[in-house]
Parts: sequence; C-alpha cells; structure tokens
Amino acid sequence: MAVKEGSFEELRERMLASAKAGIQEAYSSEEYALIQAINAYLETNKSYNLTYERLTEWFGIYFPEIRINNAKSLADLALLLTKPEQPSTEEIKRIVNNEQMAKIIHEKSVKTIGRKMNMDEKKAVIEFAELSNNLLRVLTSLEDYIKIASERLLPNTTYLTDEKIAAELLSKAGSMERLATMPASTVQLLGAEKSLFKHIKFGSKPPKYGVLFKLPVVNTAPREIRGRIARVYATKISIGLKADYYTKKFIGKELKKTLDETVQKIRSAPIKPKPQMQQSPQHEQRRGSQHGGQMHSHGKPHFDFNRKRSYKKDRRR
Amino acid sequence: MAVKEGSFEELRERMLASAKAGIQEAYSSEEYALIQAINAYLETNKSYNLTYERLTEWFGIYFPEIRINNAKSLADLALLLTKPEQPSTEEIKRIVNNEQMAKIIHEKSVKTIGRKMNMDEKKAVIEFAELSNNLLRVLTSLEDYIKIASERLLPNTTYLTDEKIAAELLSKAGSMERLATMPASTVQLLGAEKSLFKHIKFGSKPPKYGVLFKLPVVNTAPREIRGRIARVYATKISIGLKADYYTKKFIGKELKKTLDETVQKIRSAPIKPKPQMQQSPQHEQRRGSQHGGQMHSHGKPHFDFNRKRSYKKDRRR
Repeated sequence: MAVKEGSFEELRERMLASAKAGIQEAYSSEEYALIQAINAYLETNKSYNLTYERLTEWFGIYFPEIRINNAKSLADLALLLTKPEQPSTEEIKRIVNNEQMAKIIHEKSVKTIGRKMNMDEKKAVIEFAELSNNLLRVLTSLEDYIKIASERLLPNTTYLTDEKIAAELLSKAGSMERLATMPASTVQLLGAEKSLFKHIKFGSKPPKYGVLFKLPVVNTAPREIRGRIARVYATKISIGLKADYYTKKFIGKELKKTLDETVQKIRSAPIKPKPQMQQSPQHEQRRGSQHGGQMHSHGKPHFDFNRKRSYKKDRRR
Repeated sequence: MAVKEGSFEELRERMLASAKAGIQEAYSSEEYALIQAINAYLETNKSYNLTYERLTEWFGIYFPEIRINNAKSLADLALLLTKPEQPSTEEIKRIVNNEQMAKIIHEKSVKTIGRKMNMDEKKAVIEFAELSNNLLRVLTSLEDYIKIASERLLPNTTYLTDEKIAAELLSKAGSMERLATMPASTVQLLGAEKSLFKHIKFGSKPPKYGVLFKLPVVNTAPREIRGRIARVYATKISIGLKADYYTKKFIGKELKKTLDETVQKIRSAPIKPKPQMQQSPQHEQRRGSQHGGQMHSHGKPHFDFNRKRSYKKDRRR
C-alpha cells in the first residue's frame, strides 16, 4: 500500500515500526534467554530429585535389598534388571563401578525377596527409569548453555562465584541493568526475600544470605562467620556486576585476590560471643539500637510482636 | 552346610526362612506398585505443568506473537520452528489442527519481532521441548498402568469414581486393608489432612472433601451442596471398598444406581440458607452445639482462638 509522505497514515506506520524496533531491541539481549535457562534448570533439577526419590521407593518393592545413592546408577540398574535375560556381573559392574558391589547385587538379584513384576508394571517402571535419565540429559544440556551465556554476559561475577550462581542472581534481579545498579546489601539478600519479609513483618531473625549461600565458601564456613563472608562476597560481586554491565572489562582476578585475603582475615579472627537478646518488655526501648557484630539489628517489628513465636524458626533456605 | 534336625541352627534357619517368606508375601501384593505408580503420576504431572509454563515463557522471547494453550502443540511447534529450514503451513497445520491459525503462525514466524536464537540457545530449547514431550509420554504410560491395576484391585471403587481417584485414595490410606476398614467420613476427607488439622488446631472451617473433590460431579456442583454430594459418594465408595477387599464381588452397578438417585435428590432439593455464625463472645457457650445442615460443627478450637483470623481462609484445594 502506497502512502503519501507526511500523511497521517505514513506517520502512524513510522511510529508502529519504531515501537516494533524498540521491542525487538529489548528482546534481542541474551540476558532473558539466560534467565529462562537458569529457571528451567532449577525446576528440572527439582523434578529430577523427585523422580529419583520416587524411583528409589518404587524399585525398592521389586528389589528391597538394593542400596544405591546415585540417581543415574539407580535408573541404569532398574533398566538392566527389568530386561528379560539375567544380567551378568560385568554389566552390573559397568553401572556401579565397583566389583565387590556388583557381585553382591548380582547375587541378591537372583534370590531377591521383592515382588515379581508383571508385564504392565514393567512397562511403567522402564518408562519412569528412562525419564530419570532423560531429565539428567536435559540438565546437562541446560548447564552447558548456562555456562556459555554466564561467561559471556557476566564474566566477572561468574569468575567470583560460578555460572549457576551468577545466572540465578540475574534471574532474581530480573535484568542486567537492575542487577548492576543494586547495592551490595541487596545482592547479598537476593533469593532471601521470603525470610526478609518475615523479618520485617514479624520480627524473626534477619536473613544473612540468599542465593550466595550456594557458595561453598559460605556454606562450609562456621555458622558465626557465614554472614560476614557472604557480606564481603556481595561487596565484590556488586563491583564485578558493574564491570560486567558498564565497562565490560575483566577485573575478576584482582577482585578475587582481595576477596580471598578478606575472607582469610575473617576466618582467622577470633569469634566474638553472640550478644544476648533481652526479653520482650525492654523491646520498646531497644528500637534501632545496635547490637555488636550483627549486620542487621533485631529491630522492633512493625506490628503484633507476640505473633513472632508462632512462626517456625527461620532456617534460611 | 548340613544341619542336624531339631538343633538350634536348624530352628534358626527355619525362622529366617519364614520371616523372609512373610516379607515376600507382603511385597507380593500389587497395591504397593499401584501406590508408587499413582504418586509417580501426580509428581510427573506437576513437572509437566511446570515444564509447559517455562517453555511458554522461554519460547515467548523468540516468538512473542505465539498463543498456544496446549503443552503438546507448543513443544511440537518449538521443535518445528527451531529447524534450520523454514516450515511450511502444512506442517504447522498438522500441529495446531486449524488451518486459519496455521496460516497466521506461518506469516508471523517469518517476520517475528522476537530474539534470534544463537546456536547454544537453540540446543537448550530443543532439549527442553523434547523433555516436555517425553514427560507426556511417561504420563500416558503411567496412566495405562494405573488403569489396569485400579480395575484389577479396586473394581467397585474405580467404577464409582475413576482409576486415578481410586488409586489416590489407596495411596493416601497406605494399604488396601487400611482403606477398606476406614469409615466413610474418613474416606471423604482423605487428602484433606492439612485443612482438617488446621480446623482442629486453629478453628478454621472444616474441610468437606479431599481427593473426592476431583470427581466432576462434586467440583461442578453448586458450592452449597458439594459437601453433601461428597458425603454420599464417600458412603457408597466405602461400601465398594469393602467389596473390593473382602468379597471381591462386583456390586458397582447397584451402588452407582442408588448413588445417582441420591445425588439427583440432593440437586433438586431447595438450598437451605446458611446458618448465621454468631460472633466471638458467644463462642464459649456454643461449644459442641449443632448448627443446621453442616456436617462438622464449628466447634471451639482447642487453643488460642484469636489466632484464627491470622490464617489464610481455607480454600480447600
């Protein structure tokens, strides 16, 4: 359709085109694909764990003597033992990677006290075991993509943490821009929204970390200094995020070096005793006061303090 | 090893053998396989729904114009549109089963404003779409087994409800024997344990149905008579369960006939106005009193009545 230049139609068409271009621009960033991939990964991982638990229980009625603590081996073994022919020790060994164990399983598989499967059950069990392996394959494939994309979009953050933690931080923040402009304290608590609001509303203990708890350096540290380590990590990550988004320079090595030094310092410092919390009646006067090394004060909750104890103790993820 | 008859060793061996036989006997019943299958089905169904939601969102960044409200079509379409060659309208039509829609999708797929996938993303999306289809295949296979086993073990109950509801009742009860010896009121509330205990502890409204809410005749009935329909169903189901477990006779047809008549009567009866609940101060005296047609009295909760309102209103599944 030919439209006269300068006419209303021409103007309208140009505006539509520009709006479309704007949307296309927004969609074009890879960050949204990475957010989808990490969420898909986390959900699929949950499904995988559920499937593993269910298969353990289900296969257990046919072969109650089995003790396998690995989803892949369990599924492979279920597939092997449901075959019409009797499996050899060699085949079992290839799955469990342990000659001794393979022998025991082979022996027990012959004279198991478990239920004999009928054909209908067998089909269902085989499909379910195959699902478990398929889920694992999908997880690996998602991991591969997350690794590539995190290193492309968030090189500094990925260097300081790992590709999945970096992607999860991005997913919680919603976009690269929002993540890069967040203060370190917000980065530290990304993923701890639930317990943060419980703290604000009901006066439970404040969270010290969200997604960052997945860092081995945090979750293997003694309980008393975990919060402080999460804090210094959040500080450096927040610098790394700004480099990832704005300057796009790789400064991960320097950040990591000072980070390791600070963590070392925290680890070697003597652990201070926890300040004792006073009881309820004094609570009114303590509003806003500081208590020692805690990062967040146990401030007075905004309403109904007595409710506090009716809530489960906050265990932080 | 030869053992002397009547010796301690011989006795011990005989006892071991008898214990083993007892376990084998317990494992031999198909009910445990059915319980595993229905639980696997329910969990896999949850995973399937999650995967569908995630794929809708994820594929939406590449093709935001798409509107498909069916997991299978969406996954198939995602697989088709990620192929290197441009798909034909014919191929799209085969998926969406609608010529008009296929044309629109074909047109829009050419000039979409969505993001262009890079190769890494494409691999992940394809794997994820294939997972969705695989989950559907597993669900179908589990359904097939559940149908066979429910009809074999619980013919009367399956006739009155359907194979999945019958299996779920069995799973909630834990075994055929426990299920068959349950009173109708317990059968009615199987699956509503959470809101039942909330009612007992905090005085929220009592539940009227658990698993039985999945019956179309219950969930499509007007709100006021749903509880009564669930009740008559529970009564007949509980008779059917006893027949399934003890006499193993098929009495489903007769039960269903009287059941349908009773439901018809309930549906055609005028709906009584709800008895008005009095306010809190009088609550003390009303303990244990009856209030009209309600099945369970709104009895006084065992402690801290004031807490009641802080809990979300019970919506019953």
